[in-house]
Amino acid sequence: MEIASLGEFGLIEHLTKDIKPQNASTCYSIGDDCAVLHYPDKEVLVTTDMLMEGVHFDLTYIDLKHLGYKAAMVNISDIFAMNGTPRQMTVSLALSKRFTVEDMELFYEGLRLACQKWKVDIIGGDTTSSYTGLAISITCIGEARSEDIVYRNGAHDTDLICVSGDLGAAYMGLQLLEREKRVYYSQVDELQKKIAEARKAGDSEKLSNLNSQFSNLNSQFSTIATPDFSGKEYLLQRQLQTEARGDIVEKLRQAGIHPTAMIDISDGLSSELLHICKQSKTGCRIYEKELPIDYQTAVMAEELNMNVTTCALNGGEDYELLFTVPIGDLEKIKEIDDIHLIGHITEERFGHLLVTRDSHEFELKAQGWNPLK
Amino acid sequence: MEIASLGEFGLIEHLTKDIKPQNASTCYSIGDDCAVLHYPDKEVLVTTDMLMEGVHFDLTYIDLKHLGYKAAMVNISDIFAMNGTPRQMTVSLALSKRFTVEDMELFYEGLRLACQKWKVDIIGGDTTSSYTGLAISITCIGEARSEDIVYRNGAHDTDLICVSGDLGAAYMGLQLLEREKRVYYSQVDELQKKIAEARKAGDSEKLSNLNSQFSNLNSQFSTIATPDFSGKEYLLQRQLQTEARGDIVEKLRQAGIHPTAMIDISDGLSSELLHICKQSKTGCRIYEKELPIDYQTAVMAEELNMNVTTCALNGGEDYELLFTVPIGDLEKIKEIDDIHLIGHITEERFGHLLVTRDSHEFELKAQGWNPLK
Repeated sequence: MEIASLGEFGLIEHLTKDIKPQNASTCYSIGDDCAVLHYPDKEVLVTTDMLMEGVHFDLTYIDLKHLGYKAAMVNISDIFAMNGTPRQMTVSLALSKRFTVEDMELFYEGLRLACQKWKVDIIGGDTTSSYTGLAISITCIGEARSEDIVYRNGAHDTDLICVSGDLGAAYMGLQLLEREKRVYYSQVDELQKKIAEARKAGDSEKLSNLNSQFSNLNSQFSTIATPDFSGKEYLLQRQLQTEARGDIVEKLRQAGIHPTAMIDISDGLSSELLHICKQSKTGCRIYEKELPIDYQTAVMAEELNMNVTTCALNGGEDYELLFTVPIGDLEKIKEIDDIHLIGHITEERFGHLLVTRDSHEFELKAQGWNPLK
Repeated sequence: MEIASLGEFGLIEHLTKDIKPQNASTCYSIGDDCAVLHYPDKEVLVTTDMLMEGVHFDLTYIDLKHLGYKAAMVNISDIFAMNGTPRQMTVSLALSKRFTVEDMELFYEGLRLACQKWKVDIIGGDTTSSYTGLAISITCIGEARSEDIVYRNGAHDTDLICVSGDLGAAYMGLQLLEREKRVYYSQVDELQKKIAEARKAGDSEKLSNLNSQFSNLNSQFSTIATPDFSGKEYLLQRQLQTEARGDIVEKLRQAGIHPTAMIDISDGLSSELLHICKQSKTGCRIYEKELPIDYQTAVMAEELNMNVTTCALNGGEDYELLFTVPIGDLEKIKEIDDIHLIGHITEERFGHLLVTRDSHEFELKAQGWNPLK
C-alpha cells in the first residue's frame, strides 16, 4: 500500500493505534503537540541517535524489522549506560517514495519488540518524507535516582576496568555481510550479462532458466540464509540483532555494585575507554589476553587476515557496557556471569596502554568509527 | 574548513563549547551518554520535529542561520501550544560532504539565537553524515504544572475560537521565493547559454563580462535582497524567520485566561482547527471576514491570482496559536493585542463550517500540507 494513500496522520494512527503506555510516568502520549511525562521523584535521562541509510545501515542486508529493533536498542543502550531505566521514546522517520505502508509496519514491529522487551512507551515522533533514503531519529527518555546515575567522569586510579559480553563480533558480522554483498553483486552482474546474451540470441529456454536463477539469488540473499553463513550465525546476530545490556545493569544492582564510570561500546572499546579516561582525568592499562573474544570472531578475523585484537579494540556496534568499579568489588564482580575484567585505571601521567600477550605496551588510539570521515 | 578534519566529537565540542545551561532543571548536558534533567514539581513536555532538505527547506533561498533559528522555533512552538515553558533541546544533524565547519557554525548561530530568546538549553544530540542533503531532528523538552496544560481535546460547545497574529503570510513568502527561484534559474540558464556561445566564438572580453554578470546574479539571490522583494519584506520574514508565540501564552496567563484547547498552526488553520474539533468531539463555525490577513499577504495573493482566504485557511508555517476559550472570557480576550476572534465551537452535529463574506457556508477541509503526498 502506498503511504500517500494514508497521509501523515493516517500512517501514524495506523502504526500506533494499539500502543498502550505501560509506565506510570507516561501521562499522555501520541496525539497532541507534546507528550506529557511525570517524574516527581527521579532524574530524567535523555539521549538521542540518528541513523541514516547508506551511512549507518544498508537495506541490502538488514531488513526493516531488524532495523527497527536495532534503532530502538541503540538508544535504550545509552540509558543503561547511565545506570538508568528506559521509559519513553519518540520516533521520527523520513521516508523516500520507495517505502510502503507494509515496510513501515515491519519497522514498527521491530521497534515495538525492542520496546516491549524493556517496557518502553512510544510517546510520539514525526513522520515525513525524504528526498532520498530513510532517516531515523530516536530520542529515548529514562529515569534514575540522582545518587544512582553513573557518568563517564567518575573513574579513579586503581579502579578495575570491566566489559560485558564479548567484543568485535558485530564488526565481523558487518565484514561478513559486506563480503556477501560483493559476492552477490558479482553474481548479479554475471547473470545479467548472460541474460543479455540469451536475449540477443533469442534463446527463450535459456533466458527463462537464467531468470529463475536470478530470482533465486535475490530471495537467497534477502533472507540472509546463504550456506556461506553457517558457523557464523553469532556474528550476524551481533550485527543485525543488537541487544542493550539492561541485564548487566540489573545484575550489578543486585550485587550492590555501583560503577564509578560507565559507557556503552558503540564506536569500539579504545574510543570509549579513552572517553572515560579523558573525562575522569586518568590513565588506563588493559591487557590483550583479557579481551573477551568469541570463537567465531577469531575464526572470521583469521579468514579475513585481520588482527582480532584490533577488531576487538576498534570494531563498533557491540553495544556492550564498559565500566569501572572500585578495586574492593573484585570478588563480587568475579561472581557475575558475562562480565570480564580487562585491566585497571591508572594515574593520568602513565598514559593509556594496551599490554600485549608478549608484554609489550602500546598507546591506545581512538580509531573507532567516525561518521564524519 | 572540512568537517572531517575535526571529526564527530571535535565538531560537537567546537559548536557547543561555550554553551552554558541556564535552567535549574538542566543538571547535566552535553558530554555523556545522556543528559540529566530534574523535574520534581512539574510535568515534562516532549515534542520532536524532523526537517529534511528538499522537502521542508530549500537552501537556495534559506541560509543556514535562518534555518537553525527556524528549526529551533518550530519545536519551541509545540511546547507553547501546550501552554508550557520550553527548557531543553537535543539537536541531531546528518550532513552530506558539501557542508563545512563554517556552515555548521552558521546553523548553530541561528539555533542559539532562538534558544537564547526563550532561555532553552541545548543539552545534546547527534552529529553524523548523510549520503545526500541535510537532515535535522530536534527534540524539545519543556515544563508545565499539570493543571496548566492545554490539550487539543478540551474545546466545548459555545467556546470562542481565537487565533494570534495573522495567517497565510508564511505561505505567500514561500510562493514569492519559489517565483524568484524560477526567475533566477531562467536567468542562469540564459547566461550560461550566452557564456557557452562566447566561449565557442573565442570572445574573451564578452566572456569576462558575462562571467561577472553571473557572479552578480548569484550574490544577489543568495542575500535575498533583489528589488523585487520590496514591499514584501513581511512575507519573507514570516517564511524565513519563524517566531514561536510565547508572548501570547504569557499574555493569556497574565490576563488569567486558561484556553480550553490549543494547537500551533504549522499545517494551515483548517487542518489544525479540525484536529481540535475531532479530539474535542465538537463542530465549529468560523467567519471569513474575521480571518486576520496582513495587507502584504492580500496584495501578493492578488498578484498571483490566488484566493487569499484559501491561503489563510490552508497555507502552512505561520506558527501562530489557535485556541479556544470559554465565552465568559470574551471581554478579557478583546483587551489583548494581536489576538483575533474568528468564530466559535458548536455541537459536533452542526459540522465544521466556514461562513463566507456573503453568508454562504462551506465545510472546512484539511487541505494543509501533507509531507507524505
